[in-house]
Amino acid sequence: MKDRGTTAKDEAICFNKGGLVQRITRGDGGVLAIITVLLLLPLAGLLFADNGDEDLLKQAKNIFGPLPQVMMSEKNPITPEKVKLGKMVFYETRISVDGTVSCARCHPIGLYAADGLKKSIGNNCKLNPRNAPTVLNAAGQISAHWIGNRTDVEDQAKQSVIGPPSFGMPSYEVVESKLKGIKGYIDLFKEAFPGENNPVTINNFAKAVGAFERTLVTPARFDLFLKGDIAALNEQEKRGLRTYIEAACITCHLGPYAGGQMYQKFGIFEPYWKYTKRYPIDEGRYVVTKNEADKYVFKVPILRNVGKTAPYFHDGSVDKLEGAVWIMGKIQLGKDLNKSQVREIVTFMESLTGKIPEDALKVPLLPSTD
Amino acid sequence: MKDRGTTAKDEAICFNKGGLVQRITRGDGGVLAIITVLLLLPLAGLLFADNGDEDLLKQAKNIFGPLPQVMMSEKNPITPEKVKLGKMVFYETRISVDGTVSCARCHPIGLYAADGLKKSIGNNCKLNPRNAPTVLNAAGQISAHWIGNRTDVEDQAKQSVIGPPSFGMPSYEVVESKLKGIKGYIDLFKEAFPGENNPVTINNFAKAVGAFERTLVTPARFDLFLKGDIAALNEQEKRGLRTYIEAACITCHLGPYAGGQMYQKFGIFEPYWKYTKRYPIDEGRYVVTKNEADKYVFKVPILRNVGKTAPYFHDGSVDKLEGAVWIMGKIQLGKDLNKSQVREIVTFMESLTGKIPEDALKVPLLPSTD
Repeated sequence: MKDRGTTAKDEAICFNKGGLVQRITRGDGGVLAIITVLLLLPLAGLLFADNGDEDLLKQAKNIFGPLPQVMMSEKNPITPEKVKLGKMVFYETRISVDGTVSCARCHPIGLYAADGLKKSIGNNCKLNPRNAPTVLNAAGQISAHWIGNRTDVEDQAKQSVIGPPSFGMPSYEVVESKLKGIKGYIDLFKEAFPGENNPVTINNFAKAVGAFERTLVTPARFDLFLKGDIAALNEQEKRGLRTYIEAACITCHLGPYAGGQMYQKFGIFEPYWKYTKRYPIDEGRYVVTKNEADKYVFKVPILRNVGKTAPYFHDGSVDKLEGAVWIMGKIQLGKDLNKSQVREIVTFMESLTGKIPEDALKVPLLPSTD
Repeated sequence: MKDRGTTAKDEAICFNKGGLVQRITRGDGGVLAIITVLLLLPLAGLLFADNGDEDLLKQAKNIFGPLPQVMMSEKNPITPEKVKLGKMVFYETRISVDGTVSCARCHPIGLYAADGLKKSIGNNCKLNPRNAPTVLNAAGQISAHWIGNRTDVEDQAKQSVIGPPSFGMPSYEVVESKLKGIKGYIDLFKEAFPGENNPVTINNFAKAVGAFERTLVTPARFDLFLKGDIAALNEQEKRGLRTYIEAACITCHLGPYAGGQMYQKFGIFEPYWKYTKRYPIDEGRYVVTKNEADKYVFKVPILRNVGKTAPYFHDGSVDKLEGAVWIMGKIQLGKDLNKSQVREIVTFMESLTGKIPEDALKVPLLPSTD
């Protein structure tokens, strides 16, 4: 058992069944306590596990917990008016510097809200530094982006419009003036933010997009299982879930979204770039915090719909889920998972492919420019 | 009355109420006869017109004719399986050279299937030579593209994938192999093209996209009027329709789509670039035929949903519909339309904004790469 070095202020040490030390970097807003509880619950479950389906269900309930219907935020209560406007501006290209970028460009709903590229291409063909994660279930995470440099989905929406490789607009004021220039939006912002004198603001744009994204929860067959319907998963999937638990994937990929609740060093046992072979090396969360302990640390991605959102990792370096699972075993868990184990884990993961809300699958008609 | 020069083989001369000579360039497939009949019908109507609503309705029926439910093609019969597949591949970015271009990129359904740019931006930021027309109702035209260099919507879909400023793929074979590489498509092509040994072909891709686009008919309030419901248009709109007829817009913008049935010189009375101020000068259909008489000739665009598809003209040079109508009056009809006339015509045109079919407003879920 090796202590890999921690700083008391930012990190906590947890032990899983196999005795592996895991460094958990604290997310903004004191999520450390929650993470510790979430981690301890499944570990307690594991100690008493057996192979029966009922016990598997009990363990799974402890590990994952129920998927919410929507991902609420006290700062941004969800209203139908906000969601309606948010979905519209999610498709709005006219607020990008070259008129080609909308949220939907990198997060096309039909591709499970990820664009299938290794790294997204923004305005004027600029390359984003990392792979675009899906926005489905994304609002349930501790932060947005691979390195947690956006506090939540609202902050992500807001910053994207001036992000140089995203919408590339010169300032928030220009975005506001573009939105005001499309007359149809004035009333829609008024309806979504009643009582405000000047509702067409970048913060309200961000709240509207956030409210829409907070509805993007995708219940899957796995959730029926979690609710007690043991037959909702077939034998292969249940075997896969067992392997997923036993291999210790749950150390990080836990909670309702199977991830998104903590930061973690990518490459605990070996440097990640030995496997991804992409250079220059991405220093991860260190870019945000300039804290040495955050070097090569990334937010643990959620695994909901992971079977639909290739390619994988922050650099999109791996095309196949099997490959990603095997690499994770090697460098996160120090395990050389065999082909059957990898296949079993992938089979379980595919049961996390969920149903996109009907309303999110309807294209909104946008107000005309003229 | 000036004869502006014609060649007997390719053109016909028609006279409208004002005695203006209109040169009608023949579209592929002998549409000349149809056009002549279509032209003569409204002209006959005009001779006996009065200001009553019933007479206006009678005239309008003759000028426009009923909008079909779908735009059929003998070469490509519409089936639900083809439409389903066609809508999916319409959103497919993975068959473009940089993974960012799909049909929906330049024809986003939420923006009435036109992208709002002066000229569309394709793969690797390449600029298309002309403004992207909407694909709504487009299959009802004599050809596709502003200069008619695509015979129909199927031909347009096929050629786009290797179009250097569009999808930019090196060959049809590479597109076919990309489609075959996304396993989920194999069965969908089989279902859409039953009995074929090797259904995943570029021609079947084109037929599927075409079948989908042939369903994109958008009935409007104006069609209720055409069916006999005189109250479906308000007084302003009926006045606008009268002005539209009297100003002779109907000389070219006629038929069920209010255009799309002929080619016409852009700038009969004055060169178009005097007003659009975009250089170098686009020689229009001459680029295709190398026939001197086709210089500055373009396909007459359809006016269905024109109020939603700014900017206007082949070069997207004009942002406001009022401006476009005034310029058309000046250079096509030799008339300096006053503000009221322009406003009236625009008011009528806005009654052509239609309802996009429900199914086309549902985002298709695409098969995963992995």
